[in-house]
Parts: sequence; structure tokens; C-alpha cells
Amino acid sequence: MISHPVICALRNSVRCWRQRAVIKAAVEASDLCGWRCYSTSHHRGVTGMEAILSRVVTPLPTYETRDKFPPPPESNSVEFMHFYKSLDKEDKLGCLTKLSHDFGVDHKSASELAVKLLDTQVRDLATILQAEDRLRYSLTPRYKQLLNHISKVEGGVKFLVDLRADVLEIISSKASDSPHIRDLNGTLKSLLSEWFSVGLLRLERITWQSPCEILQKISQYEAVHPVRNWTDLKRRVGPYRRCYAFTHAAMPGEPLVVLHVALTEDIADNIQSIVREIATPTPCFEEDVNKVNSAIFYSISSTQAGLQGVELGNYLIKKVVRELQSEFPHMAQFSSLSPIPGFSSWLQGLLSQYRKEGRGSDLLSEQEWREVEQATDSEPGTPAVDALRKLISTSEWTRSERLSSVLEPVLMRLCAWYLYGEKRRGYALNPVANFHLQNGATMWRLNWNADTSPRGVANSCGIMVNYRYFLNETSTNSALYLQNKVITATEQVLGLVSQFQKNSKL
Amino acid sequence: MISHPVICALRNSVRCWRQRAVIKAAVEASDLCGWRCYSTSHHRGVTGMEAILSRVVTPLPTYETRDKFPPPPESNSVEFMHFYKSLDKEDKLGCLTKLSHDFGVDHKSASELAVKLLDTQVRDLATILQAEDRLRYSLTPRYKQLLNHISKVEGGVKFLVDLRADVLEIISSKASDSPHIRDLNGTLKSLLSEWFSVGLLRLERITWQSPCEILQKISQYEAVHPVRNWTDLKRRVGPYRRCYAFTHAAMPGEPLVVLHVALTEDIADNIQSIVREIATPTPCFEEDVNKVNSAIFYSISSTQAGLQGVELGNYLIKKVVRELQSEFPHMAQFSSLSPIPGFSSWLQGLLSQYRKEGRGSDLLSEQEWREVEQATDSEPGTPAVDALRKLISTSEWTRSERLSSVLEPVLMRLCAWYLYGEKRRGYALNPVANFHLQNGATMWRLNWNADTSPRGVANSCGIMVNYRYFLNETSTNSALYLQNKVITATEQVLGLVSQFQKNSKL
Amino acid sequence: MISHPVICALRNSVRCWRQRAVIKAAVEASDLCGWRCYSTSHHRGVTGMEAILSRVVTPLPTYETRDKFPPPPESNSVEFMHFYKSLDKEDKLGCLTKLSHDFGVDHKSASELAVKLLDTQVRDLATILQAEDRLRYSLTPRYKQLLNHISKVEGGVKFLVDLRADVLEIISSKASDSPHIRDLNGTLKSLLSEWFSVGLLRLERITWQSPCEILQKISQYEAVHPVRNWTDLKRRVGPYRRCYAFTHAAMPGEPLVVLHVALTEDIADNIQSIVREIATPTPCFEEDVNKVNSAIFYSISSTQAGLQGVELGNYLIKKVVRELQSEFPHMAQFSSLSPIPGFSSWLQGLLSQYRKEGRGSDLLSEQEWREVEQATDSEPGTPAVDALRKLISTSEWTRSERLSSVLEPVLMRLCAWYLYGEKRRGYALNPVANFHLQNGATMWRLNWNADTSPRGVANSCGIMVNYRYFLNETSTNSALYLQNKVITATEQVLGLVSQFQKNSKL
Amino acid sequence: MISHPVICALRNSVRCWRQRAVIKAAVEASDLCGWRCYSTSHHRGVTGMEAILSRVVTPLPTYETRDKFPPPPESNSVEFMHFYKSLDKEDKLGCLTKLSHDFGVDHKSASELAVKLLDTQVRDLATILQAEDRLRYSLTPRYKQLLNHISKVEGGVKFLVDLRADVLEIISSKASDSPHIRDLNGTLKSLLSEWFSVGLLRLERITWQSPCEILQKISQYEAVHPVRNWTDLKRRVGPYRRCYAFTHAAMPGEPLVVLHVALTEDIADNIQSIVREIATPTPCFEEDVNKVNSAIFYSISSTQAGLQGVELGNYLIKKVVRELQSEFPHMAQFSSLSPIPGFSSWLQGLLSQYRKEGRGSDLLSEQEWREVEQATDSEPGTPAVDALRKLISTSEWTRSERLSSVLEPVLMRLCAWYLYGEKRRGYALNPVANFHLQNGATMWRLNWNADTSPRGVANSCGIMVNYRYFLNETSTNSALYLQNKVITATEQVLGLVSQFQKNSKL
Repeated sequence: MISHPVICALRNSVRCWRQRAVIKAAVEASDLCGWRCYSTSHHRGVTGMEAILSRVVTPLPTYETRDKFPPPPESNSVEFMHFYKSLDKEDKLGCLTKLSHDFGVDHKSASELAVKLLDTQVRDLATILQAEDRLRYSLTPRYKQLLNHISKVEGGVKFLVDLRADVLEIISSKASDSPHIRDLNGTLKSLLSEWFSVGLLRLERITWQSPCEILQKISQYEAVHPVRNWTDLKRRVGPYRRCYAFTHAAMPGEPLVVLHVALTEDIADNIQSIVREIATPTPCFEEDVNKVNSAIFYSISSTQAGLQGVELGNYLIKKVVRELQSEFPHMAQFSSLSPIPGFSSWLQGLLSQYRKEGRGSDLLSEQEWREVEQATDSEPGTPAVDALRKLISTSEWTRSERLSSVLEPVLMRLCAWYLYGEKRRGYALNPVANFHLQNGATMWRLNWNADTSPRGVANSCGIMVNYRYFLNETSTNSALYLQNKVITATEQVLGLVSQFQKNSKL
Repeated sequence: MISHPVICALRNSVRCWRQRAVIKAAVEASDLCGWRCYSTSHHRGVTGMEAILSRVVTPLPTYETRDKFPPPPESNSVEFMHFYKSLDKEDKLGCLTKLSHDFGVDHKSASELAVKLLDTQVRDLATILQAEDRLRYSLTPRYKQLLNHISKVEGGVKFLVDLRADVLEIISSKASDSPHIRDLNGTLKSLLSEWFSVGLLRLERITWQSPCEILQKISQYEAVHPVRNWTDLKRRVGPYRRCYAFTHAAMPGEPLVVLHVALTEDIADNIQSIVREIATPTPCFEEDVNKVNSAIFYSISSTQAGLQGVELGNYLIKKVVRELQSEFPHMAQFSSLSPIPGFSSWLQGLLSQYRKEGRGSDLLSEQEWREVEQATDSEPGTPAVDALRKLISTSEWTRSERLSSVLEPVLMRLCAWYLYGEKRRGYALNPVANFHLQNGATMWRLNWNADTSPRGVANSCGIMVNYRYFLNETSTNSALYLQNKVITATEQVLGLVSQFQKNSKL
Repeated sequence: MISHPVICALRNSVRCWRQRAVIKAAVEASDLCGWRCYSTSHHRGVTGMEAILSRVVTPLPTYETRDKFPPPPESNSVEFMHFYKSLDKEDKLGCLTKLSHDFGVDHKSASELAVKLLDTQVRDLATILQAEDRLRYSLTPRYKQLLNHISKVEGGVKFLVDLRADVLEIISSKASDSPHIRDLNGTLKSLLSEWFSVGLLRLERITWQSPCEILQKISQYEAVHPVRNWTDLKRRVGPYRRCYAFTHAAMPGEPLVVLHVALTEDIADNIQSIVREIATPTPCFEEDVNKVNSAIFYSISSTQAGLQGVELGNYLIKKVVRELQSEFPHMAQFSSLSPIPGFSSWLQGLLSQYRKEGRGSDLLSEQEWREVEQATDSEPGTPAVDALRKLISTSEWTRSERLSSVLEPVLMRLCAWYLYGEKRRGYALNPVANFHLQNGATMWRLNWNADTSPRGVANSCGIMVNYRYFLNETSTNSALYLQNKVITATEQVLGLVSQFQKNSKL
Repeated sequence: MISHPVICALRNSVRCWRQRAVIKAAVEASDLCGWRCYSTSHHRGVTGMEAILSRVVTPLPTYETRDKFPPPPESNSVEFMHFYKSLDKEDKLGCLTKLSHDFGVDHKSASELAVKLLDTQVRDLATILQAEDRLRYSLTPRYKQLLNHISKVEGGVKFLVDLRADVLEIISSKASDSPHIRDLNGTLKSLLSEWFSVGLLRLERITWQSPCEILQKISQYEAVHPVRNWTDLKRRVGPYRRCYAFTHAAMPGEPLVVLHVALTEDIADNIQSIVREIATPTPCFEEDVNKVNSAIFYSISSTQAGLQGVELGNYLIKKVVRELQSEFPHMAQFSSLSPIPGFSSWLQGLLSQYRKEGRGSDLLSEQEWREVEQATDSEPGTPAVDALRKLISTSEWTRSERLSSVLEPVLMRLCAWYLYGEKRRGYALNPVANFHLQNGATMWRLNWNADTSPRGVANSCGIMVNYRYFLNETSTNSALYLQNKVITATEQVLGLVSQFQKNSKL
């Protein structure tokens, strides 16, 4: 009977029709844009970008009408995503700069509301609360709405994670020192923190029955002890091993942070026994529960640069500990077996500096220097410190048992100091140490000859360290470290540190 | 070799030990509390509550150290959850009042930072941005951290949804008019909005193969057309029907909003053909795709009181439309068949008011009044308006064909006015109308004799309405309605509204 | 280049073309038939049926070419299935009779090959083996191929299960005494036994999270203690309960045999404590592992009449025992709590027969008869045995404590005899007893007042029995029972049996 | 009250106790054996084997008691499986020989029942049917029961599949010519055919989301076009590709037969375009449905040697066709692109034989021989046929365009003859041809330069062939081929065959 809807044309018909036309045109414009091809976008220059941003970043509604604004059409978000992805690196910087600068907080409005807040201070609490809420609202950057809407589109969350990776790259590469970019980073981080809250993450155990897609990514993301091939990978998810990852509903099939665990009798002091073990041809190789007393976290990798600062690894370790405790009720020892990236280059830097300062001889005792000299047959006239530098840069010392035993005490105490004594803004300089100490682990044991791979010798003279998790100490340790910068360590570590201090006259 | 960890006891040993002891004591205290029994909590009075809140709501770190605070132990969150659940209604009010009042924004700090912001106005943008960020941070209520931590605990998100339901109940029942409670509501709503963002929701089709647990809940939550028994339910998820729900990773097994759809040839004008149809004993009753041209949304129910204001229904309808379009590429008509709750009571109120004002006769034409009188055999002396009120309150008119045909035009134009003309703050008074109009639907057709169940006759004189979704109009319609309060309607509806206006001399 | 295939038309072209035409016509004929409507089939009479059977039951290939026959088109099987389903009961009998009679073993060929086998007896083993194989092949009924092909079609296995149910119904109702029908039954049973072999069954635990479809069937199939409503059902899959079923890949969503288990502290002696317990409103009612020492099988139901004689229940119990042992390593007691269907009617029969034979007084001692008389106030002249019969048929004795205590020893010893002493072909007459004894269970304990529901009192005077599974005895018990007809029972049962024998002068 | 079960010790107590003891001893003996270590089994010699077989292969019950035998304890089956797996190859042969010889059909009983059957021939049908059934039963080998029981144990079905692979290996390697081994093979095949019936198989589409375990097996099993690495594998399950497998409930995670399909516009004439295509770095490379007109089966592999003769590939192709038709309703062309294994070696054999017979010149025309000679610059005096043999065995001709164009017509017509004319027992000699022709495909097109890999050139001079599936012809074709040995082929193929016949004077 009634074939087409007609528009309300009563008393207010004229105004109504005009509004409808305007709104519809706007909506359609942005709808169409969703389908434009941006392949030539980098020729468009600033004007095109500005037009797009103006269209997709809708103005902040007034405080009063903030709940009365319908979400903009999805095509807005999709358009921005397509547009941004089509840009080259330089134009991305331009786009993010413009977005954060021109579509951020309305400073005038914010300062006006700050004045109002101060004016209300003598008034009742209800008035103050309202003034605060308005002020808070006015401090919302306009682009935050766009980010919010993007998160609702398919693939949107992943887009924002990658966008933040770009922002972080801009900041760390000093491509821009705009405070607005830093502000954008802060806004993104706080949004991502909400979406990647632990309650929304899912712990998955990865096995050989997991989808190939996931296992391939696990393999690619493994940065600590690279996976050599699929046999190697199969072993890392096989018996006496566990592999866990956090995934997120909005990024299916994408592990966010991955933890590899070895189940052992004692706390492992050597990584080759875990990742390079020759595959024994045991057809149905079952775990013997009685041999499982310790869980060794031998690799933890974050996979999303854009989630930096969003706490995931800490929560993953805690969840895995609980998971393992329920699988092995009698399991008592939880510890990492961690690499010490940066030790060798720090040591080279130290030696080089000592040489310049003429204090080359301070790091080793006279007896030790003599032994180095004898063991290296260094050319007469070459300063021993140079001989040592060469030894370390070439990893040659590993081929001589004698040199190795001469250097063991020297390198162990230097390494202990590097981990325990070297700081950045008061916290451990070494990032792996900083991670585990923040989590509340104890710096438990330095292990000599722990990673004899070329990589391990080059990075840290083959030394590795256990950060041990005493479950009823981690909260205290974590607070002590974060708030008071105190590192909890064992006698072994502290003993080595003392030896270093004695020798080095620090 | 090293059997126990020892604590760093070097130079700073004394300070360190003391700190450790203090921190550890605090941590342990709260750990233990997690296991306390709160069964006697309501005898403890205010002091106990204060102690608990002080312990679990940690102070806001300074702006500088905000990233250096480890998350409090989970036991904090668990303790608060147990504690709160153990309270009776009155104590809950007390607890929420105290929480929102004593652990909210630090007004002094906020106003100081507002002063600072104003002082920076002449300075460079970097300084302004920093001042804004500090101010923004200072406007964070201290309890927001607690809420954040609770969300990470198992069952925490559901707890917060229920907590907000309590807060909303307090506000709507006027149990408290504290502005702090309103602030708490705002904070909760904004947090829940982030966590229940569409990107994190999962669309699930509910079928007879779905878990019984879900189907039982679907049945319980169905408020629009109550499910009578499991046969009824089975039909609602069977052929020519679709049932969809949003679920959320943090609340598994819990449908958040449920949409029931009937697949029909034409846009349905009667609900009994959908929900009360006698089960035909067709053993393998298959859908005939050629008979499916329209999708009728005949019921949509939100299940979580605590998610009020968090847009879900709108997104669910849009996602379902897309789902149906991909299943039935030729499907062209999308429409609701909606109840009109409140029409009968509005009408009773109107009649009663007209009578009081002596304008009783204005609503119907003289001819109509005569016909009512004749049809009812009303006692002489009884005013016709009273007879009409009685007829409607008893639903007796439905038993007389004559009365029914007399009343049809009258009730239809009154109902059209109720839906189209009656407003609250400028928006449609009827909540179902308001929901669909916000979504951008068109008020499409009023249907006489559309719900002949006792409930349907009692609520809306058996009338139902179709809100139709013209997919390329919804964005425009939604914006027009929300921003300009313009209702899009068809000629049928507008014609009925005109008739009402003519008769009623409004 | 080459647009259409052409048919080999070389030397042998004429013969080839003719064959192709013939074969193709046959194939197409049957293809078309798959789509015919059989709605009028029962008017067609015998001729139509014969035509269809001749077409769909292909002749047995010769022994030499048996591997060189392609499977007939699926439409053959589909046609037969549609055709058979369209028949009424009488025509089904006709169809099965014709199928089994006209399309069975070729007796002439079989006897010829039997002669050949006898001729080879003096020859070498290879020749004998071949003769046996040919004979074995010739003993294959021609219809077996059709059944085999049907099993490959979607829904085919279920069709055959239902077909066998029809065959069994024909046999047990004596609608036909054709030996061919019995042969068909044997063939079907042996095929179904292969397809429903335990290795192909899947054990599923049914919970409240299982698909509604399955739970509804579980509810419908529960014959032992009928499910009253969905709350009742929810409890039967909730805490302290387990529900397991075997399902089969070829009949998805269809539980084949269902076992209900209650987890208790002691071996239950009363069914109401298990299935009628009032639902306590405990919101998060968790199992306490320490209270779980016994698994009580309180209901086992087969759901497919057509699988009679295909051992499933026995295997299900064994698999469930293993499942429970792995969930509760310390669980020590496994027992049924079983109904005794048929006891009351057997007792009525016995009383009636005794009365006829004038031995009415033999079953009870004089003292007992006196007590019955006193307790019933039976009219003078009414023989006590009649009073007893009436009491039992009306269940009235349960309302009198005195009568109840008088009858307890009488009914218990009669019941013990019924279970232990009454036989059919040497095995326990009571089917439930026979089932558990075959499985190797021990007749462990008779329980008075064990099922006080009207149904329980009517069927077995409220008595129930535990068949207990001593896991290291079941193999022995099963063999003893099946091969030597020996029932393993406890002192309690044997004591009651002795008392019966003493009293009854049997 | 009753603490221990006691054994029925009534009238028949003595007999009963004795039986129980004997049975129990037997049961326990075999239970214990399940746990014995067989590592030294091959030293035990024949006696140990005989003892074990006697214990685990229970005697066939009499016809009358055949339903009254409880299944033997699982440990019987497990014992046999462990025992057999512990044997070396030679002992396996001994074990299978003994099993099939000593535990097969009871020939005496079979011949007696054959006599009885002949005696009944004058009697009524019921008697005949019974005699047939008894005879049929007596023809069951005693070991069939053991096989049946093994199938019920975990891993039992896979064990039997592998056992049959051993049996087939014995037969084909002629390690034994025992007719009993052939009988065992027949029994196993018929049992496996029941268990691997199509109704019990599950079609799985393999994608990059499938478990790694399955994908690794798919990669290993691919025999036709070996998978080079995981990138290659990823492409074979990616866009424009489909990979399907049958799996079976009793062998989870084990693909039984795997079909690889390429989705193309036209029927592919070259395999490199399918499996060696360079991976283009297209990030989100979506299928364009409009470009998908043909499904090319480019590889089909059976994975279980023990399932030889159990029709799986044929059913897989048919199921996949249906699956593809439902995904792509307009898909019209289904064809293989198949290798021609054995063509080159057949050709070498032919050339060698022709040379011996002095008919070397018959295969090519004079003109062709001249061209070969010119193109090869063969040494004077070397017969052209030798030059040709060398060319083919070295694949050198592919490097010369001239030679290639000379040889094309020659090799194409020889290959056509090889596929179409060369027979074994009347069926195509080439196994791939035989497979597709049995399925009812048409020999559709020979493709020159279709597999230019070294393997392809070496095996079949780079020629491949399409067997095309015209869906409404396959039933007819299959029957024609299997029953009348008629190959359906296109004009192209038949034309090439004619040319061959003309040239070769066959």
C-alpha cells in the first residue's frame, strides 16, 4: 500500500528538508570516499590530506550533546585506514603531525574551563564535580574519537597497534620532536591499554596441533633463540616443553607475546641442553612427571612493536605459572634462563674507555693480566688491554681451555656488575634484567658456558643468567625495585659484584 | 651451590631492609585479607569499610612515577569483590558513597594544576600540552585504578557490570542524590564503553545446537514476547527464524544483547504469525530461499542492566543486516515489528485528563462518540469518555466486531500521535521508537490487530509498528533525529497524525 | 581445440556403442527415479515394488569379477530409502519379505559350491581355501550389497538402524514367521555390529554446555527415571552428577546409549536422594572431591531399537569407569542402583498361581500371614492371599508403617528369589539383572524403600538393587555367567534367597 | 553391613568354585601378559609365539553359543599388538603364517556343514537357510575374532591397517606364497572395507589454519609433486587452491587420502603454472570468483599402504566435486592434470625390444628418423634408434628447440598409445589412467611441455594428461570400463592412437 517513505513534511517541513539534504550530502560524500583509490595519494600534497582529515575527524560534540551524536559511518574509518596505508613514510609523518596538531585538544576551550573550575572552588561539591567533568571532557583530543571508531572496524585494532608502532618509531628515531606526536602516543597507549587489558586476553597453549598459521608466526617472532627449522619448532612445542601465548579477540590468529618454557629436573644452567638437543628418534616419547620439578622460561618475545609499554609479558608469566602449578601441583622452582644482550659491547666500550683514560690495567689483577699475556702470546709491545679486546671481539678465547679458565672469573665479575651495577635512570641498564626485576624476580645465578653458540659467545661471552621467581616474594620485590630501585640478588651475584668493586677500584 | 636468595645488603643495606619489611608487610596484609570471611561484615560498621577501602584503593602515583607502579596484588581486587558482594543493599549504598566521595578526584591538586595551565598560556605549545596532560591526569578519580585492576581478575568485568547496575539503581530510585555517585557512574560507563567496544564483541548465531546454558538464558532474557516453553524456544531458533547475540570474551556464555529475526516474504503485520504459530508436524522442514525476502526484527533484548548507555543494540542490528545480506544476497527488506509499550496507559491518562478538563469530547468526532455509545449500551448518564476508558482497561472491545471497527480509526490515529508527537526532551517518548529512530529507521507502518495476545491488547490495544531500515538512509536519518530531533515517517503515519491533529484541535 | 569428448569408435565401435547406450539408459533410469515422488506409492501394489527392487538390488557379480564392479549410482540407494519410507506398515512388511526372499542367497549356486568344496577335500590346501572362499562368497545375500551402499549415503546408517527396528518389530510381533526375515535380521545385525564397533564410537560427556539438541534427546530417552522438566535435567548434568553417551560419526547429534552417574560418598541405597532432591538455591555449588568415593550408575538407556544385540552398554560402562578413574584417582566403588522392572507383576502371577494351586499359604510363614490379616483388617472370609494381592496392586501397604514392616522381610526374600532364581534359558529372567551380570557385576545388595515414587512402588514394591562392579572380577564373573550361567552374589542376597527357599518349600 | 561379596555357594557350589578358579587364572594370566616386555621376543623361538597365539586367539564358540561369549579382556588384544610390534621382519612373517595357518577356518567342520547343506536340499526353506547360516559361520576364520577385538582397542584400527600393509608386502615381495596369507589378506580387506566405509569418513578441507601436525603429514605424503618447503605448502592450501582429505574417527589426525585442487579459468595444460609459480608478494591476495571456472585435480595421494583396494580416492573425488559445486554453483569443468609415470621406461623398453627384433625403424617415419639424425649429429654408424634412446634417457632433447619440435609428434602418439593401448589383464597398464578410468573419467587431452621439471621430463618426456570428469557420464563410463574394458577418450587422443597404429604397423 505504502511504497516509499516520505519525509516528515509537517509544520517544520522547510527547515527539515534543508537539513536532511545537507546531512545526506555529507554522509554520502564520506561514503563514496571509502571507495576511492589512494594509489596516487602522495602526489596530492597537503591540501588533499587536510581535506580528508577534516572530513573523517568529526568535531567534538559539545559537552551537553555528547551522548546525542550517532557514530559516524564506518566508511569514515575505512577511508582513513586506506588513506594512511597508501602513504609513504614521509607522508605518514606529515599526516600524523597534522592529525595530532590540528585535531587535538581545543586549548582555548580547555583554559576557559580551567578558569571556570577555579571560579567554582567556593561553591558546592556538585558544582565542582561538574566543572571538573567538563574540563576533563574538554581535554579530550578531537582525534581520540576517530581512533575509537577505527577500533570498531574489522582490522581496526591491528591498524591502531601498527599506527602506534609508527608513532614510536618517529619518536625514537627523532624524526620529529613535536610534543603533539608525543601526546598522540600517550592517547594511543592509554586506549590500547584498555583494549589489551588482561581480562580480554586469552592464554593459549601452542602445540603441534595448533594451526600452522600460528606456529609459523611463533617461529618468526622467536628472537631470543632463533628457530632453525620445523623440526626444531616441533621440539619446542613437544614433550618437556611448553609454549604459551596471549591472543586477543580483535586480532585473531596473532600471538601478542610468546613464552617458551622447558620442564626440567633442576634449574637449567645451559641453553644448548634446551634448544639444540639432538632429536632422539624416540617414537612415542612421553613426559615423565617425576622428572619435572622446574619450569625454565627460556624465551619471551613480544610481537607487536605498537604495544610497547602495555604490560603483557609480566601477566603472561604469572598466568603461565598458575597454569603450570595446576598441571604439576608439586612444581616448586620457576626461573628464567636469560640472555645478556649488550654485555660484550658494554665490555668493549669499557675497555676502550679505560685504555683512553690510561686505566687499562685496573680491571684485572696483575696476576690476571700476566696470565692473559702468557696465554695469548701477544706480540711484545701490544698493550694487554688491546689483546683482551681482540680476544673478545673474535671470540677466539673459547678455543683455548687455558684462556677460558683465566677469563672465567674476570668475565663473570664484570658481567655481574654489568647486570647489577649499570643503571639507566636508576633502573637496570640491561633490558632483560629490567623486565624480570620489574616482575619481581630475583637475580639468582650467573652461568658460565651457558650459551656456547657463536651468537651467545659474541653477545655475552657465553654467560647467561637465571632470574628466579619466588612466588611469595615477587610482589615485594617488584615494588622495591620500581619504587626504590633496589635489586634483589643472591650471594653468588653479590659476591661477584664485590669482587668487581674490589678489583676495579670503583 | 647457592641454596637461598639473600637480599642485597651492600652499602644501602639498612635503608633497603627497612623498606622491604614495610612493603612486604603491606603486601602480605592485603594477601591475607583476600581470604577473610566477610560473613559478618554488615556488623562491622563504617570503620571496617573505611579500613578496607583505604587498603584496596591505592593512592594515585605522582604524574612522574605513574608508569613505575607495579600493579597491586590481585588479592586487592578479589578482596574488594568479596567484601562488596557480602554487603546488603544499604551497606552497598554506603560503600559506593564512601568510595566515590573519599577516593575520587583530588580537587585541590586539580585546581592547582588548572592554575598552572592558565599560567602557561603565554608559553610554548609543548609546555601547554604538558600542563594539559598533568591536569588530565589529576582529574582521574583515585578509584578508577581499582576498577581497572578488578577488570583483570577472573569474573571482574561481570562484577563491574553488576556494580554499575547497582549505581544506576541508586540513581534512578533516588536512594542518593550524591553528585559523586553520578561521577562514579560516568567513570564506570566510560570504562565499560571501552571494554565493550564493538571490535571486542563476538556475533554468535544461536541455534538448537547451541549450548543449553545459552539457550536457557536466551529464553529467560526474552522480555518482548515471553518464551512459553522449550518447543516455543526451539521454533524461535529453527527454520525461517534467526537468533543472534553479542557475547564478550570476558563474560563467556553470557549473551549481552539478543536479536530475534523472522524471515518472511512480506513485511509482517502481525506477531502471532511469528511467535504463536502452531508447530506443524513437518519432520524435515527446510527453508525455501525463494520465500525469504524480508527480515523482521521482532524482538531485541538487552540483558545487562549495567551496560545501559553502552551502544550495543544498534551495532547488533547492523551486524545482523550484513550477516543476512551475505546469507541471502537478494534480501531487500529489513524492518522491525515492534510493540508499543505504554500506549494504553498514556491513552488512559489522556482520557482522564481530558475528562477533568471537560474536553472529553474532543478526541473523537461526534459521529464516533455516537457509535461508541451505541455499541457499548452504556448506561444512560455515564459519560461516553468513561465508557471508553472502561472498554480499554478491560480489553472488552475486542470481543465485539462492531466496536472494534468503530475504534480502529480512533485508536490508530491516537497511537500514531503517541509515537510521533509525544516527546521527552525533544525525542520520542516511547522508548522502542526512540531506539529505532536513533538507529536511523523510518517509522513505517502502524498495524491494526497486530498483537492479539492479552498482553498485546492490554499494552497497546493490539497495535504494533514497523520501523523499517532503508540501509542507505539510516546514517542520514540517525543524524537528523539525534541532532535535529526530526522523525522520518511514511505517509501512512503522517496521515494518521494529521487526522489526530484535526480531531483533537491540538 | 577439442571441444567435446567423443566416444571410442575404433575397431570395436559397434559393440561399444550399443553397450554404452544400454548402460546409460539403465543409469539414467535409476537417476531419474531418485527424484520421483512416492506419495502415491501404496496404491501401486506389488508390481511397482518388484520393479523398484529389481532395479536397485543389483545382481551379485561373479566371484571373479567381484572387484570389477563400480558402485551403483547413489540414486539407487536414495530411491530405495524414499520408496521404503513412503510405505505404510503393511507394505513395509511386504517389501521386506520380498527383499529378503527374492534377493537373498542363491541357494542353487551355494549348494553347487558346497559340492565343489567336498570334491576338493583330497586336494591341496590352496585349492580348499579357494573353494571355501567361493562358497563363502556365494552365501552372501544379494541384498547385502544394497545395504552396504545405503550406508554410504547421507542418513543411510540411521535408515538402516531404523530398518532393523522394523524387522525386529515384525519378528517380535509375529507379523511374519518367514525365515528369510530372520536372515535379513542376522545380516543387518552383523553389518551394524561392524559399523558400531567400539573403536568407531565416541564417548561424550554431556553437560549443561552441550548442545540443546542433545540434551533434549537425553531427556526424551531417559526411560528409567523420567526427567520431569529442564531444571531436573540441569541437575542431572550438574555437580555430583555425570552423564555420558556414545555417539557415532555417521549419526551426528544422536546419543546411542546414555549412562547417568551420581558421585556419592557411599553406595546409594535410595534413588530419591539422587533424582528428586529439591534444588537448593546454591549459586556456585562446587563439587568437593573429598566427598566423592563412589560412582553410582543410576540409569542406562539404549536409544536405538535397531541396535538390539549390538553390544554398547557394556562398553559404555567400562569406558566411563576408566574416565572416572582418571578424574578421581582414588575412587574405589562402582555400582549400579537399578530398578527391578517386572517384580510386582511376577509376584502377582505367583500369588495367583499359588492360590489356584491351593498353596497360597506357602509363601509366608503362619506368623506372617497372621500379621498381614491383622494389619489389613481384611474382611472375614477373604483369603489372606487375596488381601495381599490387593495390597500390592494398590500400593496401599505403603501408607501403613505396620504393614510395611510386616511385608519388608517377605517382599525382600521374594524379590531376591525373583532376581537370583528366576531364569529364562538359564539366564536371569529380569533384563536389568541379565545386563549387569553379563557385564560381570556382582548382585550386591537389595535395598528396601529405595524407590518410593508411585512408579517405583508399583513396579517393584519400592525395592531396588545394586549391581556392583569389582573391576578385577568382572572378566571372570562375566565368563562364569555367560558360559556357566553362574550368578555371583553377596551374602545378603544369598541369605534372602535361602530364606525364600526355606519358606517356599521349593 | 555386607563387607565382601561371596561367591554363590549353594547347591552347585563345588563345580562353581572350580570353574571360577580356572577362568580367573586364565583371565589373570592374560592380564599380566599385557605388561610383559617383549624386547627379547625374537629369541624365544616358535614355542613362545605359539603359546601367545593360543592364548590370545580364543576358539570360535559353537554356532549355538556364539552370542553368549563375553568379549575377551582388552589385555588380549594389547598383548598381541605389543608382541607383534616387537618382532623383526622375519618373525613377523612367521607369526602371520602361523596365525593364518593354525587359527583359520576349521576345514573339517566346514566340510561337514557343507554335507549337511546338501542333505537339506529337499527340505523346506527354513531348514536350508539355517544350514546356510551355520555353514557361513563355520567358514569364519578363528583369527577374525582377534582382529575384531583389536579394532576396539585404542590404536587398534591403525595397527590393523599397518598389519595389512605387512601382509601385502609379504605377498608382493613373494616372501611367502602361502594361500593362508592370501586368505588373511582377504579377511583384513573385508574388515577394513567395513570400517572405512564412506559413511564413516569425514571430509576435511585443509587450510593454513589446520593443525601443523596434519599439514606436515600432507607435505610428507605428497608423492606426485613433492612439496619443497613450507612456503610451497602454504601456497597449496592458499587462494585458488583447495586441499581435501578423508579422515577417520578411529585414526584421528591422520589423513587417509589427500586431493589437491587448483581453481582455474580453463583446464590447465601445464603443472608448473600450478605448483611452481613464484610466490608474488601480494599481501591480501583474494580469490576472484569470476576467474574460477575449472577445478583441476592435480594430485591425489593415498597415505595408508594397508588400505589398498579399499575404495577411497574415487569417493573423495566425488565428494569434493559436490563440495566445489556448492561453493561455486557455476563451476562447469572438472578435470585432472595427471602425470604419466612409467611412460619413459616403457618407451625405452620398446625401443630396446624393437632394436633387438631389428624393427627399430618401425616406430618413426623415414622423414622423422632423418630429422632425428640431423638434429643429433649422431656419429655415423650409430643406429638412429640408439641415438634416440640416449636422447630420452638423458633428457638432452629438451635443450634443443629443433629436436623438441621433431620429437613432439612422435612422443605424443607413442604416449597416447601407452595410455590407451597398453593393457594389463585388459585394463590400462598405467596405474593413474586405470584409477581415473575406473572412476568414470574421460581420457581427454595429452599436453606437450606440461611438466618441464627434471622429474617430469625423466618420467614422461614432459607430457601430462587430463582425465576429465563429465559428471553425467561418469557412471556409464565407469561401468563400461570395468565391465567391458572400454576406454572413453576424445578425438585428440584417438587421433594420436591412430597415427601410432599407422606408423607402427601394429
